[in-house]
Amino acid sequence: MSDTKPIIPPSRNESEEDIESLRKGSKKNVSYRSNGDLIPNAGKVELDPSQPFGMGIINDIKRTIGTHWKEEMTIFNQKTIAVSLLMFITVIAPTLTFGAIYGTSTGFSIGAVETILATAWTGCFFALFSGMPMAIMGSTGPSLIMTTVIYEMSKTIDVPFLTFHAWISVWTFVYTTVTALFDLTRYVKLATKFTDDIFALLIVSIFILNAFGSPFGPGGLLRYLDPDNKSHSDFQLEYGDEYIYLKSAILSILIGLACTATIFALRALKASPFLCNQTVRNSCSDFSVTVAVIIWSVLKNVCFPTVKVEELNVPDSFEPTYTCCNAECTAYFPDECLDVTAPAGKRAWFADMMDLNGKPEVIGIAAGPALLAFILFYLDNGITWHLIYSPRNGLQHGDAYNWDLFLNGFCNLINGLLGLPWLVATTVPCIVHIDNLTEKDKNGNIISVQENRLTYLFSHLLVGLSLLFLPAMKLVPMPVLLGVFLFMGLSSIGRIDFWNRFLLFFQQPSRYAKTPFNKYMKLRRVHLYTVLQCIFFAGVFMVQNTKSIAIAFPFMTLACIPGRLYLLPKIFEGWELLLLDGEEEEIKRFIEEKESVTITVHSGHDNNDDEESDE
Amino acid sequence: MSDTKPIIPPSRNESEEDIESLRKGSKKNVSYRSNGDLIPNAGKVELDPSQPFGMGIINDIKRTIGTHWKEEMTIFNQKTIAVSLLMFITVIAPTLTFGAIYGTSTGFSIGAVETILATAWTGCFFALFSGMPMAIMGSTGPSLIMTTVIYEMSKTIDVPFLTFHAWISVWTFVYTTVTALFDLTRYVKLATKFTDDIFALLIVSIFILNAFGSPFGPGGLLRYLDPDNKSHSDFQLEYGDEYIYLKSAILSILIGLACTATIFALRALKASPFLCNQTVRNSCSDFSVTVAVIIWSVLKNVCFPTVKVEELNVPDSFEPTYTCCNAECTAYFPDECLDVTAPAGKRAWFADMMDLNGKPEVIGIAAGPALLAFILFYLDNGITWHLIYSPRNGLQHGDAYNWDLFLNGFCNLINGLLGLPWLVATTVPCIVHIDNLTEKDKNGNIISVQENRLTYLFSHLLVGLSLLFLPAMKLVPMPVLLGVFLFMGLSSIGRIDFWNRFLLFFQQPSRYAKTPFNKYMKLRRVHLYTVLQCIFFAGVFMVQNTKSIAIAFPFMTLACIPGRLYLLPKIFEGWELLLLDGEEEEIKRFIEEKESVTITVHSGHDNNDDEESDE
Repeated sequence: MSDTKPIIPPSRNESEEDIESLRKGSKKNVSYRSNGDLIPNAGKVELDPSQPFGMGIINDIKRTIGTHWKEEMTIFNQKTIAVSLLMFITVIAPTLTFGAIYGTSTGFSIGAVETILATAWTGCFFALFSGMPMAIMGSTGPSLIMTTVIYEMSKTIDVPFLTFHAWISVWTFVYTTVTALFDLTRYVKLATKFTDDIFALLIVSIFILNAFGSPFGPGGLLRYLDPDNKSHSDFQLEYGDEYIYLKSAILSILIGLACTATIFALRALKASPFLCNQTVRNSCSDFSVTVAVIIWSVLKNVCFPTVKVEELNVPDSFEPTYTCCNAECTAYFPDECLDVTAPAGKRAWFADMMDLNGKPEVIGIAAGPALLAFILFYLDNGITWHLIYSPRNGLQHGDAYNWDLFLNGFCNLINGLLGLPWLVATTVPCIVHIDNLTEKDKNGNIISVQENRLTYLFSHLLVGLSLLFLPAMKLVPMPVLLGVFLFMGLSSIGRIDFWNRFLLFFQQPSRYAKTPFNKYMKLRRVHLYTVLQCIFFAGVFMVQNTKSIAIAFPFMTLACIPGRLYLLPKIFEGWELLLLDGEEEEIKRFIEEKESVTITVHSGHDNNDDEESDE
Repeated sequence: MSDTKPIIPPSRNESEEDIESLRKGSKKNVSYRSNGDLIPNAGKVELDPSQPFGMGIINDIKRTIGTHWKEEMTIFNQKTIAVSLLMFITVIAPTLTFGAIYGTSTGFSIGAVETILATAWTGCFFALFSGMPMAIMGSTGPSLIMTTVIYEMSKTIDVPFLTFHAWISVWTFVYTTVTALFDLTRYVKLATKFTDDIFALLIVSIFILNAFGSPFGPGGLLRYLDPDNKSHSDFQLEYGDEYIYLKSAILSILIGLACTATIFALRALKASPFLCNQTVRNSCSDFSVTVAVIIWSVLKNVCFPTVKVEELNVPDSFEPTYTCCNAECTAYFPDECLDVTAPAGKRAWFADMMDLNGKPEVIGIAAGPALLAFILFYLDNGITWHLIYSPRNGLQHGDAYNWDLFLNGFCNLINGLLGLPWLVATTVPCIVHIDNLTEKDKNGNIISVQENRLTYLFSHLLVGLSLLFLPAMKLVPMPVLLGVFLFMGLSSIGRIDFWNRFLLFFQQPSRYAKTPFNKYMKLRRVHLYTVLQCIFFAGVFMVQNTKSIAIAFPFMTLACIPGRLYLLPKIFEGWELLLLDGEEEEIKRFIEEKESVTITVHSGHDNNDDEESDE
C-alpha cells in the first residue's frame, strides 16, 4: 500500500475540517512527511540470513550455553525454590492427566509412569544442556493425537506398537538433525506478535475453559455436577446412592474456587501494607500457589475426610504400565487374555527394535509418519519458543532454535526406544515459568528476568522423585489443581495484547488505554486488525476443538504466518503494522520521529480528549 | 490527664536521643507548646444545652421539615429510582424474615402481613413527616424480643395479647411524648465515634455472618449444607430422598455468591473504561443490586426450574395472619381447636381495647413493660440516628431527635392499636440508604449527599404495593437476597474507622495509612485505644448473641457512652482523644496548629519514613 498518498499525519481525532484547513495551508509549519515516511520498511517481516551447514547449531551453543551456562547454574535465591515448587505443581498435574489418556489411547503401552519418567529425565536433560532453559518440555495435545494415530497404524499393519514407535523416533531424529544442521528453524521466526498472540490466547483460553469445564473436553470444576462424571464412578458404586455425588461436587467446586481466590489473595499481599515487612510479603507472593495447594489439600483431608473428591490419577508403583499375558509379552493383561488368571509380568523398558513381525519394510514405512511427527515437533516447539523468547519478554541470553530442536529430536529418540511418550515445548508451563521469574515495576514494565537453569532442573528432579512417593500424591485433590490452573489462565490472559485489544470493542473510545496504536491510528483501523485476528483465532480454535482434525492444529497456527506476511500488508500500511505488530524498539523510534513532526504541525492539539465531561 | 507534663511534642518516631537532645536545647527554635496546649478542651464531650418545654420539638420541626421539606420532596433524578428499588430490596427481605419469626413468637397474632403493613405505612408516614428522612424505620431484633416477652406476660396474666400490646403502646406513646417535650434526647448525643463505630461494626459483622451462616443464628448460605435446614423440609418430604437437598444447597450457594460478585462487578464498571459512556456506567452502578437480583432470579427460574431453593416466606393474601377457631376469635385455628374443621374467619384489624378479661388493672400494669419498651425505642433510635446523622456523613439538613422520637411513639401507638409490630430505626438499611445517595471523589471523600424524602417514600410505597402481588415475590430465591446482604456487609465494613484501625495490628507500621492519629500519636497509644474498643465490642457482641440476655443489647451499647466519657480520659490525653474520636473540623484545626509549631522545632524531620528500603 502506498507510502505516497497521505500528506497529513492522519492522527485519528482530526475532523474533516482540520484536514481541510491543513491542506489549504491555513495552519503554519505544515510538515509533509507522512507516517509511512517516518520509518523505512516499517512493518516488513524479513527472513534471517541463512547460516552455513552446521553453523546454526554451533552459533546457538556459543551464544547460549557457551556464554551463560555457569551464570544460569549459579543464581540461587528464594525465587529459585519458590518457582521450582510452583513448576513442579504446574507440570505434575497435566503430566498425570496426559499419562491417563495415553494409557487408554495406546492400549496401556504408554501410561502415567512412562509420562512422568519422560517428563522428568527430558526436563533435567534440557535444564542442563539446552540453549533455552526457560522453555519447558512436556506432553501436548497434538503429540498425544499423533501417538494415537501411530497406535492405530501399528494395529493396521500388524507390528508391535512400541517397535513401530521406536523406528519412527529414529527417523524423526534424522529429520530434526538435518533441519538443525541446515538452519531451517529460521523460517519459524517469521512469526510475529500477530501469530504469537493468537496462539497464546488459544492456549490460555483452553486453560481457563478446562478449569471451569470446557464444552469440548472432559474435566473441569463444573463437570463435577454431572452425575455421570467418570470421577464419581468409584464411590457411586460404593455407596449405591443416586445423589451422593453431589456432596463431592459441592466440595470440589468450593475448594477449587477457594484455592484460586487464595492464590490471588496471597499475591495481592505483595502490594499491601499487611504482614511485618516486604520480605515476608514477597515470600507469600512467591509461594502463593504452593501454600494455597497445601492449605486446601490439608483442609479437605482434615475437615472432610469422608467426602470423596477426585484424586490425582497416580500409578501405584514405578514400573512399566503394560502388564503381560504371557512371558513373551505380546498381549495386555487382563483385557486380551481373560482366561489367564495372573499377569506374567511387565513389559521390558526397552522396545525390541527387531520384533517386526517378519516385515522389515516397516523400518522404511516408518519414515512416512515420522515426517508428520517431525513437522509437529518443528511447529509446536517453534511457535512456543517464539512466544517465550520474544524480545517483549525481556530475555537477554539469546535463543537456540537449531540446537534445541536437535536436542528435542535426540530426547524423543531415547523416549521412543524406551517406549516413553514424545515431548515438545508446552506453552502454559513456559508462560508460568517466565512470568514468575520476571520482576516488574508498578506499571507492569519488565525490570529483569531471572534467567536460570536451576528452577527447570529442580522442578523436574521433583517430578522424578515423585515416582518414589506416588501414593502420597493422592492427598492432593484434583479440584485444588483445577483451581491452580484457573489462576494461571486468569493471570496470563491480561498479558496478551490481542485480548486487551479485543476488549476495546466494549469500551468507550475516550477511555482507551494510551497505547501507540490507539494514539496514532484511526480507531476503525485498529478494530479492523483485531477483527482479522479474531477470524484467524476462530479458525485455529475450531480446528483445535474438533476431535477429528485436531492434529492439524499446529498447521492452522502456522497459517497465521503467511496471513501476516502476505494478506495484512495488502490491507494495512507499513507504519500501521509496525505500531500493531512491530518490535518495541521500532515503535519507540516511530513515536520519536512522529512527535518531532507533529509538534510543528499542530502544537497543543492532542487527540482523544475533550471527553470525560460526561462524568 | 495533665496538660502540663510533656514539654516536647511527642511525635511518635522520635527516638529517646532526639527527645534528650531536645530537652538539652541542643536543637534550635524549640517550641514549648505541647500537643495538649494546641486546642483548648480537646477531646471533651459536652451535653447540649437544654431547651425549654416543647421547644425541642418545635426547633426540630423548624430546622428540618420547616426549612427543607419542599426541596427534599422535589429532587427527582435517576438516583431516586435506583435507590428506591434498592431500598425496596433491602427492606422487604428482612421484613418478611422478621414477619415469619413474629408469627412463631406471638402465636401468629402478628405475622408477615402485619409486618409488611406496619413497615409500609410507617415508612411512608416518616418519609412525609419526619425530620430525619435518611433514617429508615423497620423491625429489629430487640423489639422482636421485647414483643416475645410481652406475649409471654400476657399469657401469664391471662389477658388477650393484642389488647395488652395495645395498652403498652398507649403508655409508650406517653413516655416518648414526655421525653420529646422535655428535650431529653440530647443525652444520646453524648455518644461519639467511639460508640458509633462499635455499634456499626457490630451490626455490619452480624450482617456478614448471617449472610454466610452465623454460628449464633439460623439462615445463611452455608447453612443450606445442613440436611436439617428448615428450608429443605418441604421438598425433602416430596422427593423422599436423603441427598436431594444437596442439589438445592449447591445451587443456593453458587447463585448467592454469584449475585454478590455480580453486584461488585457492576459497581466496578463505574470507574472502568467499559460501556459507551459515563451515564450508562453510572446507571449500571446505581442499579447494580436490582439488576443482579433480577439476573439471578431469572437464571434460577429459567435454567433450574426443577431444583428447589428457599423462597421468600411470603404470606398468601392480604388479611390478618390470625385465623380464628370461633366467631369470637379467642383461639388460633388449627393449633388450638383441633376438633374444628374450618376456620371461623380472621381476627379484626383493630385490637379490642376493652377485652381485658375482667381485669381493668391491666391498663395500669401495662405502664411497667411500656417503660422497658420505651427505653428500647429511645436507645435503638438514638444510637442509629447518631450514627447516620453524624457530621462525618456529610448531611446538611440537620437532625430532629425530639420530633422523630415523638413521631415514632405515635406510629407505634397506631401499630399497637392495629395489632402490628413496633418499628424503630434500623441501622443497615439506613447505612445502605445514605451510602447510595452519597457522591464521593476518587479518594473516598464525600462530595455531596442527595438528601431527600422520595427514595424513602417510593421504596415503602413499593413495600405496600407488594401486599397486592405477594405470590410474584416468591420468584426471588432467598439465596440471591443473602448475596445482596453479603454485598451490603462487605461494602460497608471498609467505612468503619474502628475496623480499619483494627487491621493495623496486621500491617507493617511504615505502610500504615496516613491518618492524623497515625502521624501524631505514638503507635502503641493508637493500638491501646483499639484494644479498649475491642473489649467494649466483645461485650456488646456477646450480649447480642446470647439469646437469654439479647434484650439488654441496647443497654450494653449505651454503656460505651460513659466508658468514653469517664474511662477513656483517664487513659488518654485530650488531644489523643481528639485525633481518634473528635470531629473532623477540630482535627483539622489541631493539625494546622501542630504544623505551625512543628516546622520551627525540627524542620524536615518527618516521621514514619526511612523504611521501604526493604522492598
